[in-house]
Amino acid sequence: MAGIKDVAREVSLSTATVSRALRGLPGVSDANRLKVTDAARRLGYVPSPSAVGLASGQTRTVAVIVPHVTRWFFGEVVQGAEEVLRTAGYDLLLYNLAGEPAARHRVFHTDLLSKRVDAVLVLGLRPTEEERRRLAGLGRPVAIVGAAAPDLFSVSIDDEQAARIATGHLLDLGHTRVGYLGGSLDSLDFVAPSARLAGYRAALRERGIEHHPELEDVGEFTVAGGRAAAARLLAGPDRPTAIFAASDEMAIGVLRAARELGLSVPSDLSVVGIDDHELAGFFDLTTVAQPVREQGRRGAERVLAELTGVRPPESEVLPVELVVRTSTAAPACPSAAGPSA
Amino acid sequence: MAGIKDVAREVSLSTATVSRALRGLPGVSDANRLKVTDAARRLGYVPSPSAVGLASGQTRTVAVIVPHVTRWFFGEVVQGAEEVLRTAGYDLLLYNLAGEPAARHRVFHTDLLSKRVDAVLVLGLRPTEEERRRLAGLGRPVAIVGAAAPDLFSVSIDDEQAARIATGHLLDLGHTRVGYLGGSLDSLDFVAPSARLAGYRAALRERGIEHHPELEDVGEFTVAGGRAAAARLLAGPDRPTAIFAASDEMAIGVLRAARELGLSVPSDLSVVGIDDHELAGFFDLTTVAQPVREQGRRGAERVLAELTGVRPPESEVLPVELVVRTSTAAPACPSAAGPSA
Repeated sequence: MAGIKDVAREVSLSTATVSRALRGLPGVSDANRLKVTDAARRLGYVPSPSAVGLASGQTRTVAVIVPHVTRWFFGEVVQGAEEVLRTAGYDLLLYNLAGEPAARHRVFHTDLLSKRVDAVLVLGLRPTEEERRRLAGLGRPVAIVGAAAPDLFSVSIDDEQAARIATGHLLDLGHTRVGYLGGSLDSLDFVAPSARLAGYRAALRERGIEHHPELEDVGEFTVAGGRAAAARLLAGPDRPTAIFAASDEMAIGVLRAARELGLSVPSDLSVVGIDDHELAGFFDLTTVAQPVREQGRRGAERVLAELTGVRPPESEVLPVELVVRTSTAAPACPSAAGPSA
Repeated sequence: MAGIKDVAREVSLSTATVSRALRGLPGVSDANRLKVTDAARRLGYVPSPSAVGLASGQTRTVAVIVPHVTRWFFGEVVQGAEEVLRTAGYDLLLYNLAGEPAARHRVFHTDLLSKRVDAVLVLGLRPTEEERRRLAGLGRPVAIVGAAAPDLFSVSIDDEQAARIATGHLLDLGHTRVGYLGGSLDSLDFVAPSARLAGYRAALRERGIEHHPELEDVGEFTVAGGRAAAARLLAGPDRPTAIFAASDEMAIGVLRAARELGLSVPSDLSVVGIDDHELAGFFDLTTVAQPVREQGRRGAERVLAELTGVRPPESEVLPVELVVRTSTAAPACPSAAGPSA
């Protein structure tokens, strides 16, 4: 396999220059850096990360910390980040927390990250005060994706606004009894649940409607959780005529529960989600679309910019958009707040 | 942060023994190894991978090579592998090929892997002859998951048998005109498409039914691909009364196409898939269930066993099981092979 000397010979530069070019260190012209990386790729030369790491602190690796790798949102964000990192010659070290406090502790409270990676992407998670100190103490670029945290770069949507749009859509159609499905508020470090609940309540308040705790339930951002919570909300004597689920996966669960209870969508029940999941169109689900892969891409671009000394961009809030399909309509009887059936 | 000396002091062993224990080298009793890893975790000590790597060739990292990180099957396998690796203190370096030949070339044809990882998991991909030589040349444990390759350990299902069961189920119900949706056969390195097509044809042959090329189409293992291919199959004058889709995601696409064409499932069209995807129950989809996370777990366990000198298990073929729901039934008219409507 090719060594650094082969690359140096190929481009007629010193091995020192080739080494600096490949390690992203200054003192190499852009033209030479391009020539070197091209030749290295052509010849199949890869600098040893151990040697590079000891010499320069660079590992050409970015850690991506994911709460749940099997959830649609996180898979899409990883895909977006990975495309950008791969193109730039960086590898992706995946830390899946899988909801386990021990995994979270290992990632944030040991010096694991400082020894293994050049930068860190944290997905969908608001770091605690202590975790923020740890991340800052790494002295490495950090980006939060799909959440926001004080003093750290982040790229996300405005979760409260997204929830306000979804709820407002139902209220504008004439619904007054609108249920809400979100996440558990115990996990305060996950931003989306609390911000989306706040947006739901704000939309009600703006129209002078009181929020009712019995219309708010927890679907844990999964299809199964959404289905179970919707079954509870819809079982009561005074059921809602519409449900806003804070993710499309939960909204799909609501559609399932409605079908099982013999309720027609949208005539008996309107349903709106957030995401524009790949199956949202399939289910004719009205939703607030967010650019998911794009958030992953921007997060990766940000840490790479910081690594190469380019002036990094400021925190970004990406736009969302209401996509109206046929799962929402005006209530069959606008004042329908009485017992069902 | 804690150093190796703190760990040694905590467990009253020499730093050399602690180092050997943490690097998984022989000459340390199981009891001491456990004591050391416990203490290291408690104190938050993580050996520097660069230093460890140079000294022993160990990186405590396993590469996982994934064709498409956003597909359900691969997300589940990664989750299973990751659980096992994390518990053993290994990190997961994710290489997503995203269908790009350049990414595949970088992973297999450079010395990237040999410098960065202790072991390799290859998901859903049959390595070419040349790639197999490269993998063998690494001198590191390699496991193929969801596919099989000569001379390499693998854990998978019997794809041909799974397809034969699915097709047989439709034929046993009385269908004679059965469509097939699979993957492109150009990508011969992906095992599932060709093996599943072979199983479909074998099931027909066993019952003396000829296969018809016009009933075989490509759905690319996605919902959108399955929908488009089903729309083609069902548009003809002589449409099938049943479709076997070689993945549940494609089968969900078939259900969508059927609905759009005004066909009822199962009275106008029976549909069967493979996987038991988390939404299969939602769609009442009959399918051949396979243990997906389990394949990821077994692959990870296998490379870890080899790394720690335990006698590694042989290649494994995990069982599948027909799960009959309501998307399949006898054809409305058993001889219905004529024009629809």
